[in-house]
Amino acid sequence: MDITPGPLLTTINSPADLKQLTREQLHQLCDELRQYIIDVVSVHGGHFAASLGVVELSVALHYIYNTPYDQLVWDVGHQAYGHKILTGRRDEFHTNRKYHGISGFPKRSESEYDTFGVGHSSTSISAALGMAMAAKYKGENRKSVAVIGDGAMTAGLAFEGMNHAGVADSDVLIILNDNCMSIDPNVGALKEYLTDITTSPTYNRLKDDIWKALGKLPVGKNFTREMGSKLEHSIKGFLNKSSNLFEALKLRYFGPIDGNNITKLVDTLADLKKIPGPKLLHVITTKGKGYALAEKEQTLWHAPGLFDKITGEIYKKKYETPQPPKYQDVFGHTIIELAEKNDKIFGVTPAMPSGSSLKFMMDKMPDRAFDVGICEQHAVTLSAGMATQGMRVFCNIYSSFMQRAYDQVVHDVAIQKLPVVMVLDRAGLVGEDGPTHHGAYDIAYMRCIPNLVISAPMNESELRNLMYTAQLDTMEWPFVIRYPRGQGVMPDWKTPFEEIPIGKGRKIKDGQDIAILSIGHPGNFVTTAIRELKMDGLNPAHYDMRFVKPLDEALLHEVFSKYDKVLTVEDGTVTGGFGSAILEFMAQHNYKAEVKILGIPDAIVEHGTPKELYHECGYDAPAIAIAVREMMKGKVSVSQLLG
Amino acid sequence: MDITPGPLLTTINSPADLKQLTREQLHQLCDELRQYIIDVVSVHGGHFAASLGVVELSVALHYIYNTPYDQLVWDVGHQAYGHKILTGRRDEFHTNRKYHGISGFPKRSESEYDTFGVGHSSTSISAALGMAMAAKYKGENRKSVAVIGDGAMTAGLAFEGMNHAGVADSDVLIILNDNCMSIDPNVGALKEYLTDITTSPTYNRLKDDIWKALGKLPVGKNFTREMGSKLEHSIKGFLNKSSNLFEALKLRYFGPIDGNNITKLVDTLADLKKIPGPKLLHVITTKGKGYALAEKEQTLWHAPGLFDKITGEIYKKKYETPQPPKYQDVFGHTIIELAEKNDKIFGVTPAMPSGSSLKFMMDKMPDRAFDVGICEQHAVTLSAGMATQGMRVFCNIYSSFMQRAYDQVVHDVAIQKLPVVMVLDRAGLVGEDGPTHHGAYDIAYMRCIPNLVISAPMNESELRNLMYTAQLDTMEWPFVIRYPRGQGVMPDWKTPFEEIPIGKGRKIKDGQDIAILSIGHPGNFVTTAIRELKMDGLNPAHYDMRFVKPLDEALLHEVFSKYDKVLTVEDGTVTGGFGSAILEFMAQHNYKAEVKILGIPDAIVEHGTPKELYHECGYDAPAIAIAVREMMKGKVSVSQLLG
Repeated sequence: MDITPGPLLTTINSPADLKQLTREQLHQLCDELRQYIIDVVSVHGGHFAASLGVVELSVALHYIYNTPYDQLVWDVGHQAYGHKILTGRRDEFHTNRKYHGISGFPKRSESEYDTFGVGHSSTSISAALGMAMAAKYKGENRKSVAVIGDGAMTAGLAFEGMNHAGVADSDVLIILNDNCMSIDPNVGALKEYLTDITTSPTYNRLKDDIWKALGKLPVGKNFTREMGSKLEHSIKGFLNKSSNLFEALKLRYFGPIDGNNITKLVDTLADLKKIPGPKLLHVITTKGKGYALAEKEQTLWHAPGLFDKITGEIYKKKYETPQPPKYQDVFGHTIIELAEKNDKIFGVTPAMPSGSSLKFMMDKMPDRAFDVGICEQHAVTLSAGMATQGMRVFCNIYSSFMQRAYDQVVHDVAIQKLPVVMVLDRAGLVGEDGPTHHGAYDIAYMRCIPNLVISAPMNESELRNLMYTAQLDTMEWPFVIRYPRGQGVMPDWKTPFEEIPIGKGRKIKDGQDIAILSIGHPGNFVTTAIRELKMDGLNPAHYDMRFVKPLDEALLHEVFSKYDKVLTVEDGTVTGGFGSAILEFMAQHNYKAEVKILGIPDAIVEHGTPKELYHECGYDAPAIAIAVREMMKGKVSVSQLLG
Repeated sequence: MDITPGPLLTTINSPADLKQLTREQLHQLCDELRQYIIDVVSVHGGHFAASLGVVELSVALHYIYNTPYDQLVWDVGHQAYGHKILTGRRDEFHTNRKYHGISGFPKRSESEYDTFGVGHSSTSISAALGMAMAAKYKGENRKSVAVIGDGAMTAGLAFEGMNHAGVADSDVLIILNDNCMSIDPNVGALKEYLTDITTSPTYNRLKDDIWKALGKLPVGKNFTREMGSKLEHSIKGFLNKSSNLFEALKLRYFGPIDGNNITKLVDTLADLKKIPGPKLLHVITTKGKGYALAEKEQTLWHAPGLFDKITGEIYKKKYETPQPPKYQDVFGHTIIELAEKNDKIFGVTPAMPSGSSLKFMMDKMPDRAFDVGICEQHAVTLSAGMATQGMRVFCNIYSSFMQRAYDQVVHDVAIQKLPVVMVLDRAGLVGEDGPTHHGAYDIAYMRCIPNLVISAPMNESELRNLMYTAQLDTMEWPFVIRYPRGQGVMPDWKTPFEEIPIGKGRKIKDGQDIAILSIGHPGNFVTTAIRELKMDGLNPAHYDMRFVKPLDEALLHEVFSKYDKVLTVEDGTVTGGFGSAILEFMAQHNYKAEVKILGIPDAIVEHGTPKELYHECGYDAPAIAIAVREMMKGKVSVSQLLG
């Protein structure tokens, strides 16, 4: 589909072109940029509402700052589409998030304008400060700007960055992009504080006066530190007292201003550029700005998929037959079922109520399920604290985000052996979000921690049973359940609960000569591969191990007694993962089978559809079949002899 | 040595006894408690200055609160000696930090008064909030109190906890124990802010008035929420404006008050106990209080070792011969040597300048080495930001604390392949600090991350060469160097620098029938074991692999071609660690040797001396020798045949 950018946007091949425009023309450019994002994302998909909200900010920053010499760091980065389009990637923008296309996030290898790779939240202040400190050391007059949302500001890392920035005497500007949203509405004390600032009558009366005062001051080419200090002082007189939170952290606070007003932004940034030292500009934007439906339902339009840009109809695939549910929804419904019978159950999510489907429980049992904001560390330690009082918390965190709470898993949960249920959503390859979001490492980084039970369901029914098992009073261990993003395999998923003995795997089928051991959802790829291999006269056994830890040793003794070729399959890194656990078992018991490990290779896996990536990594059904054939080369199977 | 507690302390076997005392008697109890800590620690060792600073707080909390029903969470916990002595562990206190003795930190399995196991900082707010939320849900009138230092307050986790606490409407009290110190002096904007509060003339004039006002208000048994609100309002009128930081986070702020004044503490806590909702009490204490030398040199007296309590002489072991230096000091001196020649080198430590010996560089090159406070996440992302500008940062973090920055290692360093040098101090078993501080998991949790070079020196010279190699312009990869706490093996350590080719191991000696592969310092245990085994006629080969990643494949092909028995030795977990990497190599190349992996078992290892723990874990020299003999059973070696 041919999408034509507007006439002004067509001329912008880099920020240098942008700088040729008059301030008046910026209005038109913003309109065209916004429209181009709508046009492309409606047809090609991607994150939507966040980039619409910062169209003006993207234009203003590149208009005023000397990028890429000046360093611009976008926090999280799913709002950086405007930035990408303005920095030479307009014509590739339709490849956004596609296999071998441009990334949905800023990425250093993609453009010199992408100064820091992002994806996870709250890294921008630390990164920009590092750049600013290096610039200062090198004697360069380079500016560093971090653009961070109010949601991302709740994460501890952002606070750590501010705590240092305030005293580091480096030229860093933090732009707090306040739209009251993470993917879901933002929560917590900081959010309430920011709301207080922006809704107070004082602010509404004074906000214009501040900038008028600024306009009268002599800010120009020869602006000195003294003049800056005078200016700053003058502005401070007008400031809402609540701005003290940032001032307390020794950041000069400016704002709040309307971040969707291009004129005000350009004026303000031009002035701030001349003020030395660490400072914070608070801008208020509307997520989804300029697309009425997105402004209204910001969570839905965070990443809506494909849609009709005129009617706003979000396309849904239509199926003839009943479809399997998403693992997320199985989790969301099942925790309610369990919580209705077990009043010790709580649900906690760090800012992913919709993504994890914990929202179902939050709506139904608001006192027992909650969102703590982008605070993975706190989510885990809070859950541990609740566990000391006998509560059974299902703490649902995306696998790659659990990396943020790793110490809390070790220190607060595992060492104390507290029975927290750690639900790792988005385990394995997540697809379009790419390397920052792949849940590639959790099997390896969890498996080395003592006291953990680590499990992965092969289907919806198994997920339900693992959840059921994890919440039993008799279950005394911290319990990890990992599952991938997206659909399972059972349209009739609502099976009755059954306890699964800890560390008990299951034999899916017997076979000859070779056994395949799988963990989690990829067990289904094995099933498909085995069907295919049957035509070659090959008949592998298949075991769904269910638990990475503890391993089902009885089952493994069976496997290694009967088979001298073993293939392992997992959607986790092959380095230190499930396959390695099998090798450790073998070494302990001195088994000598030939073992091949399939999984995510020891390399950064880029973005694409899950299907494309499974194939690239070599553990989809065809790859499994190829691996079996390879291992069986030269070995004629009994069935072939008989057949 | 017999140490007798004072007459009053002798009668205190639990907080119930404490509650029998009059307020007047508390002064004497504080004196006796302080003296007992001095008496015992001077003879038996342990953390010192922190516990002295909170003697009054420990007494006051147990006097006012109904522990253990009310939940008291000590942050970090090395200040909890007074708490331990008051809660039934007076007579075991001399076993503190000793093998099979009581832990140097609060520990759930040790006492019902230890509500939450600690060791790492900044977990207390989240944990106490979890307890408070559970209490509220269960309808219990249980109070939860977190005691957290100003140093610990800089960590992101503390901020995340406050951000939630402020809006959770639970009955949690946060006591900010402000002594301006971590182990080293505290740093950052928050520290300056707190100093502003406590040194401002407003505070000095008003602090007493506040509490007088509080005294006049009707706080008693029938204290209601409305009265609380009125009281709070009244106090607020007196508050220093700077208290806004906590108020902004919706925590009612009280203080600051003198935390070494038992009367004031008891009065204040009695009042605060009646005020519902989330609140913060700011107390000012002196670290080392009551022991003049410790008050004066707080870092030195954080954990001074054994000393003469009268003269203040800290005992140092005296040696006849030159001793090998600590790895820490080799790091500290070597980074200066390198930085003098390479102006891109920076040094960063999160609050461990003394412990890591980065202090040497901070003193000599203050613009190129700095302490960012207890902010491991920020330390790593900041280093990554600096690396984008061509700086080569040695980011020195204790192995167990790097767990806090795990996501930053993956997301900001490894995925972007930024050449940050991550120096993991305290790798392996640390000894007396126990399970929270053992650097047991880093090989496993780092090894699964792509793009990392992971190394461990066997001695001082190797450490120097690895550091030299890591900072070369040609080195394009993130580089991990791990080494243990304490002494190396080379009195003449200052060897000339030599580049080590990446992934290149070294053969220490050839041998017969069996090869030992070691990584890092335990290679020295292997050397000792081999000497011992010689008497049995056994002659193992020994390879120091140097790199966990990438492995020296050429060397491994040599090993597995020549030897069918292989023993691996590491001071890291045997689950997913160095030994597993060797097994993965074997599986890839279909080698069938018998392999035994020695290292830290898959269990929580308690505290003790490193020597005791190496022995318990079975990888000291005698254990290595036993393992070799075991593997060689029934195999007569060539040397035996010839001999």
